[in-house]
Amino acid sequence: MAHQEKETIGVEWRITLGDGSSKILVPDAGPVSRIWIALKGLIAGLVLKVWKFLKRAWDIGVDDPRKVIHCLKVGMALTVVSLFYYMRPLYKGVGGNAMWAIMTVVVVFENTVGATICKSLNRVFGTTLAGFLAFGVHWVASQSGQEFEPLITGASVFLLASTATFSRFIPSVKARFDYGAMIFILTFSLVTVSGYRVDKLFDMAHQRISTIIIGTSLCILVTMFICPIWAGEELHILISRNMDKLANSLDGCVDEHFNYNGELKDSDKQPDKKLLGYKCVLSSKATEESMAKFARCEPAHGRFNFKHPWQQYLKIGASMRSCAYCVEALNRCIDSENQASEFTKKHLSNICLKVSSNSSSVIKEVAKTIKTMKRSPSIDFLVKEMRSTVQDLQNDLNFLPKLLSPPEVLHPESKETEETTSTTHLLEVIPVVTFASLMIEISSRIQAIVETVEELAELAEFKGEVQEKDKQNQPNTNRIVASQLNDDQQTMKALERV
Amino acid sequence: MAHQEKETIGVEWRITLGDGSSKILVPDAGPVSRIWIALKGLIAGLVLKVWKFLKRAWDIGVDDPRKVIHCLKVGMALTVVSLFYYMRPLYKGVGGNAMWAIMTVVVVFENTVGATICKSLNRVFGTTLAGFLAFGVHWVASQSGQEFEPLITGASVFLLASTATFSRFIPSVKARFDYGAMIFILTFSLVTVSGYRVDKLFDMAHQRISTIIIGTSLCILVTMFICPIWAGEELHILISRNMDKLANSLDGCVDEHFNYNGELKDSDKQPDKKLLGYKCVLSSKATEESMAKFARCEPAHGRFNFKHPWQQYLKIGASMRSCAYCVEALNRCIDSENQASEFTKKHLSNICLKVSSNSSSVIKEVAKTIKTMKRSPSIDFLVKEMRSTVQDLQNDLNFLPKLLSPPEVLHPESKETEETTSTTHLLEVIPVVTFASLMIEISSRIQAIVETVEELAELAEFKGEVQEKDKQNQPNTNRIVASQLNDDQQTMKALERV
Repeated sequence: MAHQEKETIGVEWRITLGDGSSKILVPDAGPVSRIWIALKGLIAGLVLKVWKFLKRAWDIGVDDPRKVIHCLKVGMALTVVSLFYYMRPLYKGVGGNAMWAIMTVVVVFENTVGATICKSLNRVFGTTLAGFLAFGVHWVASQSGQEFEPLITGASVFLLASTATFSRFIPSVKARFDYGAMIFILTFSLVTVSGYRVDKLFDMAHQRISTIIIGTSLCILVTMFICPIWAGEELHILISRNMDKLANSLDGCVDEHFNYNGELKDSDKQPDKKLLGYKCVLSSKATEESMAKFARCEPAHGRFNFKHPWQQYLKIGASMRSCAYCVEALNRCIDSENQASEFTKKHLSNICLKVSSNSSSVIKEVAKTIKTMKRSPSIDFLVKEMRSTVQDLQNDLNFLPKLLSPPEVLHPESKETEETTSTTHLLEVIPVVTFASLMIEISSRIQAIVETVEELAELAEFKGEVQEKDKQNQPNTNRIVASQLNDDQQTMKALERV
Repeated sequence: MAHQEKETIGVEWRITLGDGSSKILVPDAGPVSRIWIALKGLIAGLVLKVWKFLKRAWDIGVDDPRKVIHCLKVGMALTVVSLFYYMRPLYKGVGGNAMWAIMTVVVVFENTVGATICKSLNRVFGTTLAGFLAFGVHWVASQSGQEFEPLITGASVFLLASTATFSRFIPSVKARFDYGAMIFILTFSLVTVSGYRVDKLFDMAHQRISTIIIGTSLCILVTMFICPIWAGEELHILISRNMDKLANSLDGCVDEHFNYNGELKDSDKQPDKKLLGYKCVLSSKATEESMAKFARCEPAHGRFNFKHPWQQYLKIGASMRSCAYCVEALNRCIDSENQASEFTKKHLSNICLKVSSNSSSVIKEVAKTIKTMKRSPSIDFLVKEMRSTVQDLQNDLNFLPKLLSPPEVLHPESKETEETTSTTHLLEVIPVVTFASLMIEISSRIQAIVETVEELAELAEFKGEVQEKDKQNQPNTNRIVASQLNDDQQTMKALERV
């Protein structure tokens, strides 16, 4: 009976296999080889994916070696802190609580000095505050007898955890003490609840706080003294780099608009990348805000005092974004369906290129001011020049109808034709007028950027105005600036020729 | 001697006090009362600050009661998990490792279901993977003798911690496994290092993993079954609400531009707030991205399947932002220095108001499509109407010069005056032309929004096309839509009359 059953199953199997193999296109390939091929494909795909992943990781490391250094720093800090386990005298001091030091290092160690300090302070204060409160609650609970103890501790955990969680929704708390509130809940719950079982609660809490302080101090020391990455400096560099990007994309955008003949289309890859620089400006608000927050925790470093006006950088960022919105609108003009006539474009191209090159040189000069932290002697001149070219552009716009209707003068008799010509002209002029008025708007927003940067220069006491007094002593700087101005003017002229 | 010294000190004190009191303006007030006044001021200020803070917290709670519910849920989960300490049989099972359950609840419990699930999975997988790896390393280290053990474990911690930290810099890892990588480092370091001291490492690791699983399961249960807040639904609501805001601010912006006479200035507070709705659209990119990430972790809920196309919402968000950039540019036109003449404005105001009301009703209709998850039967009609009004606006722009030069017809003899008139006219026309071409651009971007929403409707299989087949069965819906259309048209007319 059993034998028969087995045979039937065998037959069924064979039938299934036969059915399966008859379905595939190559009838010679057995199931084994099919599986083998599928497996090979799978493995090859997997290897390719892993390879691509590693390639990308390698690129990230090469792009910014400081990230690799940060990783080594984390590894080092962890290795150092694990000495608490390896060395008997240290282990005797803190015992199993040594794990809190390890945990602290893992959780608190951040990329920048400011972030690490900020998290460390949050952790230490959150733990200490919660520890004291938990002791109070534990004392009250232990006085009220064995039966009420769980009730009191449970209720206090419920209340304080709910309140602290709610506080994390309040923007002002969230911005600064989000992590601290979490640590508060954690410590309070742990100490209060485990007080029910652990006898030497005070020893435990004491050891825990001391290991946390050891962990945070180690983190702060390592992050500050081994290849430090300062949030403030990062913010400073980010802002000036974004300004350069903005200037480049403004230039690129205007260039592309007026060279839309398809000539540059092939060799256009680089300008295309340049063109999208303003997107970095649009998307860096969150980064700027967190950097500014962390920068305020940092001690004086490099060129920055402790009271460096980091908040002003956010204002600069906002003014840059407001300018970038306009560049975005400008950029869409290029893709717009309504294209201006070549004649109109040609007429305004010179002045528009001039405005854009002047505007972008103002942005670049301001970026240089930030980069070098020295007031620029030429910024007023550049702004004045930008304004005057903007005025020229406005004048050109005003005289546009005059220039556009030369045929009318030749045929003053036909009223009908004149009207139709001027109608067509206005239709053709609209995209250019939009473009030009966006340019004018951009230049006024650039002035807002210049103002915010000047506020920064005042608040942070940038040097540079001294140069005018020490002219005799430092003639080279002025000469360099003058030669740079000449360079700028030459590039402007070159652009005009294009 | 001692007595004398005391007296001298007393005298010195008195002198100091006398000096101090002579300096203040009210010579009657003694130092005690001054301190009292300062203290009162300080306390009053503090009380005011605390009061304001509590007021703000209360407002947040009233604004969104679900936040309060979330806090109560956290408190409840913590109280439940602390039963591991209070109940003897449970405590015997896991011992001191019960603290990992508490820690898990504190760290993993998030506002939305998706975020909680995402973090829980990260925590469980990070811990498990790190645990197994740590066991392997511990075994190798323990085989190599007492001397080499710290070296091998230390080196492995250094290497794996560095690698895992680096992986957090890779965007694809950071987006999904950032927390998991941190937990990996934490668990690996703890298990490997404490393996040097703890004898029953396997028991410890086993208990730890089981308590973590208990904690995460509790979190997921509480977050899913008690007043759940789904990230997906939040994203869905956010997108449709932002659309309404965009529509309102577009309307408000155009209204304000054409009613700039100061008439509405006093009662303008509400439109002003409306006007800035587009800023929400501009700033919600990060929220949308994280919501979409969490939504993908969520099981089917309410109207959403497991495979609901959440990524499409990001596309809709991007198209809305691209529209909001234009609204921003439009908004700045209002503050622009160059104001168009009243005559030109009046000429275009009707058509511009029509375009804006049509555009905003398209956006509102699309928002309704998303809200109800039903294809709108009237969207094609509305888009067509918007396009036709845009065409009208373009025509009006084309005929602008004709309409603007009626005096020329009266005095055809003077060529000179004509040119100057048309010159002045173009200057006055420029702001309006800019405004109008931004409106045209906005309407084309609104079409992009409509397209992305239609893609969503297809991907998510929105119902509604059926309505046309079931006309006999559901006449009410169409009637409602028709009456709404009438309402829209009436508001449009009312706007035109303004």
